[in-house]
Amino acid sequence: MRTVDLIHRKRDGEELSTEEIAYVVDGYTNGTIPDYQASAFLMAVFFSGMTDREVSALTMRMLQSGETVDLSSIPGVKVDKHSTGGVGDKTSLVLAPLVATAELYVPMISGRGLGHTGGTLDKLEAIPGFNVNLSLEQFRRILGEVGCAMIGQTPEIAPADKVIYALRDVTGTVESPFLICASIMSKKLAEGMDGLVLDVKTGSGAFMKEESDAVFLAELMVETGARMGKRMAALITDMNQPLGNLVGNALEVVECVDILRGGGPADLRELCLELAAWMFYLGERIPSVAEGRKLGAELIASGAALEKFRAMVRTQGGDERVVDEPARLPAAKNKVDVTAARDGYVAAIMCEKVGTASVVLGGGREKKEDTVDPAVGLVVHKKLGDRVSRGEPLVTVHYNAAARLEEAQRLITSSYTIADAPPVGARPLVRRVIER
Amino acid sequence: MRTVDLIHRKRDGEELSTEEIAYVVDGYTNGTIPDYQASAFLMAVFFSGMTDREVSALTMRMLQSGETVDLSSIPGVKVDKHSTGGVGDKTSLVLAPLVATAELYVPMISGRGLGHTGGTLDKLEAIPGFNVNLSLEQFRRILGEVGCAMIGQTPEIAPADKVIYALRDVTGTVESPFLICASIMSKKLAEGMDGLVLDVKTGSGAFMKEESDAVFLAELMVETGARMGKRMAALITDMNQPLGNLVGNALEVVECVDILRGGGPADLRELCLELAAWMFYLGERIPSVAEGRKLGAELIASGAALEKFRAMVRTQGGDERVVDEPARLPAAKNKVDVTAARDGYVAAIMCEKVGTASVVLGGGREKKEDTVDPAVGLVVHKKLGDRVSRGEPLVTVHYNAAARLEEAQRLITSSYTIADAPPVGARPLVRRVIER
Repeated sequence: MRTVDLIHRKRDGEELSTEEIAYVVDGYTNGTIPDYQASAFLMAVFFSGMTDREVSALTMRMLQSGETVDLSSIPGVKVDKHSTGGVGDKTSLVLAPLVATAELYVPMISGRGLGHTGGTLDKLEAIPGFNVNLSLEQFRRILGEVGCAMIGQTPEIAPADKVIYALRDVTGTVESPFLICASIMSKKLAEGMDGLVLDVKTGSGAFMKEESDAVFLAELMVETGARMGKRMAALITDMNQPLGNLVGNALEVVECVDILRGGGPADLRELCLELAAWMFYLGERIPSVAEGRKLGAELIASGAALEKFRAMVRTQGGDERVVDEPARLPAAKNKVDVTAARDGYVAAIMCEKVGTASVVLGGGREKKEDTVDPAVGLVVHKKLGDRVSRGEPLVTVHYNAAARLEEAQRLITSSYTIADAPPVGARPLVRRVIER
Repeated sequence: MRTVDLIHRKRDGEELSTEEIAYVVDGYTNGTIPDYQASAFLMAVFFSGMTDREVSALTMRMLQSGETVDLSSIPGVKVDKHSTGGVGDKTSLVLAPLVATAELYVPMISGRGLGHTGGTLDKLEAIPGFNVNLSLEQFRRILGEVGCAMIGQTPEIAPADKVIYALRDVTGTVESPFLICASIMSKKLAEGMDGLVLDVKTGSGAFMKEESDAVFLAELMVETGARMGKRMAALITDMNQPLGNLVGNALEVVECVDILRGGGPADLRELCLELAAWMFYLGERIPSVAEGRKLGAELIASGAALEKFRAMVRTQGGDERVVDEPARLPAAKNKVDVTAARDGYVAAIMCEKVGTASVVLGGGREKKEDTVDPAVGLVVHKKLGDRVSRGEPLVTVHYNAAARLEEAQRLITSSYTIADAPPVGARPLVRRVIER
């Protein structure tokens, strides 16, 4: 087998065999295929695409490049959720304890923020003492004890994805749905879960601005998971404005506790209950998604979900007192309002800019090496359709260093479109569900 | 400027500026852009294409990566011809002396055979003593003295093309007309010529099997040359069968001498006169191509062209006696006929296979490092439309080593389609002319 022939054939739109795809993945991971051939191959995939069979073969081989967590010693159904990323997208912190309360196991291996989006690990680390760097052995033990565990990717999991992703990042081949699917699914499948709910975001704050692109990716991932025998569902959800009202790592922890206490903003609550319902359903805990919504609401109302959250925080070394005393979370020294320049209605939000505003304050990473300031962030007062008066705060900025404050303010101001009339048409939070 | 952004933009079909293209060419040539980004860029160009302005910028920068031969000391018009390559495609050996006879200068920097096609340098080296490895200084001197000089590419010429071509070769990005154009034109423009005739081959023995692809490339090259102030013409010519009757390095020298003596096969004679006519015309030696055809025929009939060939061979160190004593050329030890399996007409020839047959005998290169056996080759007895009887020789194979003889015979046998009727429709040798 010659690598150049495989590049040629993929370039010309041919389907490669499972063995041929394994040859490329293995060769690049172990260094026998040079990076210049791998990058040409990736660009050929970007343009020529892959069949479902090829995507499955790619995912499977990337998965097999590392370890799969063996959860067979835990006698129960394991379900997880993965989001493609957004702004104020904090559902994981609610879902892991909530779903674990319902006699299901949630083995959650999460990521850090990159670009304009936040990351679950960064949010968890805003809780003093919380340790996301567990070994797979510790992960398995805590999962068995608590019912949920939340950690970062370990070196044992899908090492092929690490090297391929690093190459994609510098060769303009990140945005291929085929490669995105294989990257996400190879890591998720390594968790040892039985069912997976995908939250595929679309809109101005999502990586996929077009709903059709989100649907395409969702279908690829659902198909790939189903081919591996997993129960799969994907919710295409709206990301044309921040989810909830708080953006920033410590602030988002506060909002999650609000939700687990039965409060919190309506959109975040709705999405958490919807995703939990699908996790219950895929985990065969209830016979229908509608009953899943009811079950989630009950587990929150009873206080059981919040108790599970406390247990999780405690078990992973975090200070559970943050639940009742949010002042124990890191807080920014300064606050300033970004106000409306005119009367009217919020007609549109360029949500990616809002996320970027939080990043430039230090709440996220522009480069992988950057460290994150857990305290900074945004309180969003006005969302789509809201009436605003001139001078009224749109967003309150929580910041420590003033260095890039002006840039953040400018991003927020320019992200809001205020018009004479509210936007027309319904904007359902869940646009579509793709199920297998 | 970030390379990854340029890859992105080219990938997404944007036009890059002249400076941006120069940044990529210079960066890859001097090593500041790594090969994995260069290969991703090349694959993005393969799919997204380039505008005429971009192709010119690319060509120009590759040209500027090295030296341009300064021919200003030679007081006359310089014209050249370039062929995209075929089987039995030997016109350069006729054209250089023929056109130099007409008070024009022909500074010809040629290539070696690769793949199924032959190369001018390999043919010249079949002449004992002929030296194609001249310095640019020697090249200029001989050109001034003789009127033509034929050498190989020197390290000073378009070094960017060398490194880019080597990368394309292993990353499945050879077949891009934009990259082919820049590669050919950057080298040809370095010769210091004023006018260039392109012989763009199409058909079963050409790199461009489809005429539309050949026309596309021809238009790109004509446009690129014209933008540099060169007089340009491209002839789209038929390569659905070997040109002339002889294939192989020494054999092709013999056939060229036949042409220069006023004999030789009709198709080769016609194409040589047509290309010479265009070279005369672009060199403003005559006012019309029709008169150019007459002039070429006269210069052959007078013996002047053959005299010039002798002078060129002599001046470049070759044994000019091969003109009158072809036995002085290397000859293969063995001959064997490939015969027709049935009665009928030659309806089609998969000409690439015929070229490959000569290569496997040792007449060409499968890898760049291979050495060439000048003696081996093919005598083609039957061409398209010819009547054949069962058992009659189609091709006589001249070979030295028997190792791959069977493979060559099989290639030839399977390349011929013999049918009950000759192919329908006229097959003009020159399909179309593109002029600027």
